[in-house]
Amino acid sequence: MAHLNETRIDSEVIYDGRIIRVERDRVKLENGDTTTREVVRHPGGVCILALTDQDEVLLVRQYRYPHAQVTVEIPAGKLEYGENPEECGRRELLEECGCTAGIFEPLGTVIPTPAYCAEVIHVFLAKDLHYGDQSLDADEFLDVERMPFAQAVEMVLRNEAPDSKTQVAILKLAALRAAGKA
Amino acid sequence: MAHLNETRIDSEVIYDGRIIRVERDRVKLENGDTTTREVVRHPGGVCILALTDQDEVLLVRQYRYPHAQVTVEIPAGKLEYGENPEECGRRELLEECGCTAGIFEPLGTVIPTPAYCAEVIHVFLAKDLHYGDQSLDADEFLDVERMPFAQAVEMVLRNEAPDSKTQVAILKLAALRAAGKA
Repeated sequence: MAHLNETRIDSEVIYDGRIIRVERDRVKLENGDTTTREVVRHPGGVCILALTDQDEVLLVRQYRYPHAQVTVEIPAGKLEYGENPEECGRRELLEECGCTAGIFEPLGTVIPTPAYCAEVIHVFLAKDLHYGDQSLDADEFLDVERMPFAQAVEMVLRNEAPDSKTQVAILKLAALRAAGKA
Repeated sequence: MAHLNETRIDSEVIYDGRIIRVERDRVKLENGDTTTREVVRHPGGVCILALTDQDEVLLVRQYRYPHAQVTVEIPAGKLEYGENPEECGRRELLEECGCTAGIFEPLGTVIPTPAYCAEVIHVFLAKDLHYGDQSLDADEFLDVERMPFAQAVEMVLRNEAPDSKTQVAILKLAALRAAGKA
């Protein structure tokens, strides 16, 4: 077997839920030994760094149950299986912030937890925003606010927005600007 | 109930595994409705942005089974329940890279997936490195390499290292340096 590779021997579905599916697989390691890998399957997500014409970032505050706290994050949502990430991103921006965007560009991806979760998050940069009304899911409650981009970078550096996709999107745009690439 | 808050009605353990525990909770929303929240419980993790005296970053390449690919990430590991994050970080750096560090500073936290996973990753900056031998877990195989920090930033901007903690740690140090704070 190739160096570092692992190959599946068999797979057991532990839980097939509303958002996640949990599998426990037996795998063969490169030295021939067998081990188990627990995998959280997830359809993937999108997030949107949406900038106003005044260089403000749209942020959402919502209760995150696993952390028992209200977090500040950029708008985001879950892909339907097979859904186009840009379409999903535009839909989530509209639902959560009531916005459409004239410019909607890919800004890379984030793998939140590669060790045990298959989720990949597609990051987009949205500009030329046009505003309408929020239309949230029935069990979704969130507040939208705007923050100057420079202040959002400071917020991340002070560790006041630990969400991974939020940190990556804001810091990435800051680095691209510093490099004269955005 | 407070705006945005959710309160637990009851909780069912779906799976209690080696790395993760999966719970399905019924919760009450701020409008009085009931919904379910799927939560992946995890003891949390640490990751280490380790810099050599030549301003190189230590990176590890390993097979990530949920993504069926070899990824490039900064060294990292799982906390034992109750373990001190710095102790864990020093242990992981020693196990994965054979390094001890004279300087070991907190660089914030990362919440990889706040919607459905309780994991928090503690990020450390390690400097003044001293080298010994790797001592990996029995089912752990990884290669260590060094990359100049500026090149690591470029790698992240090209989306060649999508792991969340790796992007955050590298981009955060870049932003702190740009702001004259590191």
